[in-house]
Amino acid sequence: MKMRHNWRCDKCHSSERFKVETSLFVNGAKDTQLLHNRRYSLNKMGEDGKHHADYANVTGLTKEETLQHVVDSYEALAADTTNWVANLSNCSSLLWHAYHSLNVPVNWTGFYVKNGDKNELILAPFQGKVACQIIQIGKGVCGTAASSHKTQVVPDVEKFPGHIACDGETKSEIVVPIVKDGKILGVLDLDCLSLEGFDEIDQKYLEELADLIVKTCEW
Amino acid sequence: MKMRHNWRCDKCHSSERFKVETSLFVNGAKDTQLLHNRRYSLNKMGEDGKHHADYANVTGLTKEETLQHVVDSYEALAADTTNWVANLSNCSSLLWHAYHSLNVPVNWTGFYVKNGDKNELILAPFQGKVACQIIQIGKGVCGTAASSHKTQVVPDVEKFPGHIACDGETKSEIVVPIVKDGKILGVLDLDCLSLEGFDEIDQKYLEELADLIVKTCEW
Repeated sequence: MKMRHNWRCDKCHSSERFKVETSLFVNGAKDTQLLHNRRYSLNKMGEDGKHHADYANVTGLTKEETLQHVVDSYEALAADTTNWVANLSNCSSLLWHAYHSLNVPVNWTGFYVKNGDKNELILAPFQGKVACQIIQIGKGVCGTAASSHKTQVVPDVEKFPGHIACDGETKSEIVVPIVKDGKILGVLDLDCLSLEGFDEIDQKYLEELADLIVKTCEW
Repeated sequence: MKMRHNWRCDKCHSSERFKVETSLFVNGAKDTQLLHNRRYSLNKMGEDGKHHADYANVTGLTKEETLQHVVDSYEALAADTTNWVANLSNCSSLLWHAYHSLNVPVNWTGFYVKNGDKNELILAPFQGKVACQIIQIGKGVCGTAASSHKTQVVPDVEKFPGHIACDGETKSEIVVPIVKDGKILGVLDLDCLSLEGFDEIDQKYLEELADLIVKTCEW
């Protein structure tokens, strides 16, 4: 089942129009609830007088629904610009507020991108505390995701060889590579104050988000 | 009086070294206290085992000291890269955590930059909820700061003609233009959930920060 929902930020003078399109399969009680919640979420955004910030206001959804909301919202926002800085800035905000709505104590959601021709990543938009600016590709969790082109789910950062701590309070981490035509563009990085903050569900949705970022951004 | 303090993030494999240099005038009880606090703040950052995130950990300082800490910290971080995305990302974080340490309910700290040759601003790194991507130069508080090259201190956004609300909860705002050689590069934008969230003290330090951004970033 496909739902399409158009809405407009009626205060923003850029006269943008957003499209949210989601695939939903209604085949049981759980999925019916999912559909209800999704509709509720979209209707809230679609009401007159709502603002861009309302994309970040998510409550009462399951983890899967919340992360699907992030993917859908990112796609809707990115329909209006291919500017990678703008898109990754809003994406960092979507992720921050989504995880906090689930009471997952993420303390950093954001990006590092490849620094031109150098064999390193450089800090890109994020939400959270001040972060290291440069990470060598191949070093630490981010650098390993960038060199291997494989998502790193790290339940305990202290056990990851060569872990780079921008924040000593971080306990677990997930880093998803952003790869286009076999080349690394950057990484999506989330830190958590709890051990085992991320699992295969996070990996699934964050990898979907990384694929969308490749398709929607000019670099 | 000049203080110079070097420290290194001993966990970050990029082997960066940061320099903090501040001007302090010791001519009375209040300034002695300021000196004491500043030293304390710098010493905390300089200890072995501290991380980049500790730049965002500020407590027990006055408003002026806190905003001077933001300026000093930005300068120290920007000494290691001229990449504007990295620098504005960390700057947004410094501002967010500094204002929250003062219990000022800022709900957005970040940037819009000129979108190439277009007569518009586009969303750049920020902390807070999802934001409008495009703002026409000349429209709203950000667009007015960009067209006039003058800081806009808005005690009540509802009274500002043509105010653009990315977040309906915002009550007051300050926008500082970032101008180089007479041309607008972008704006520094802070929103607050309280009326009259910003005054001439904020303006003084944020304008100093905008000047530093011009000097330290390549665009």
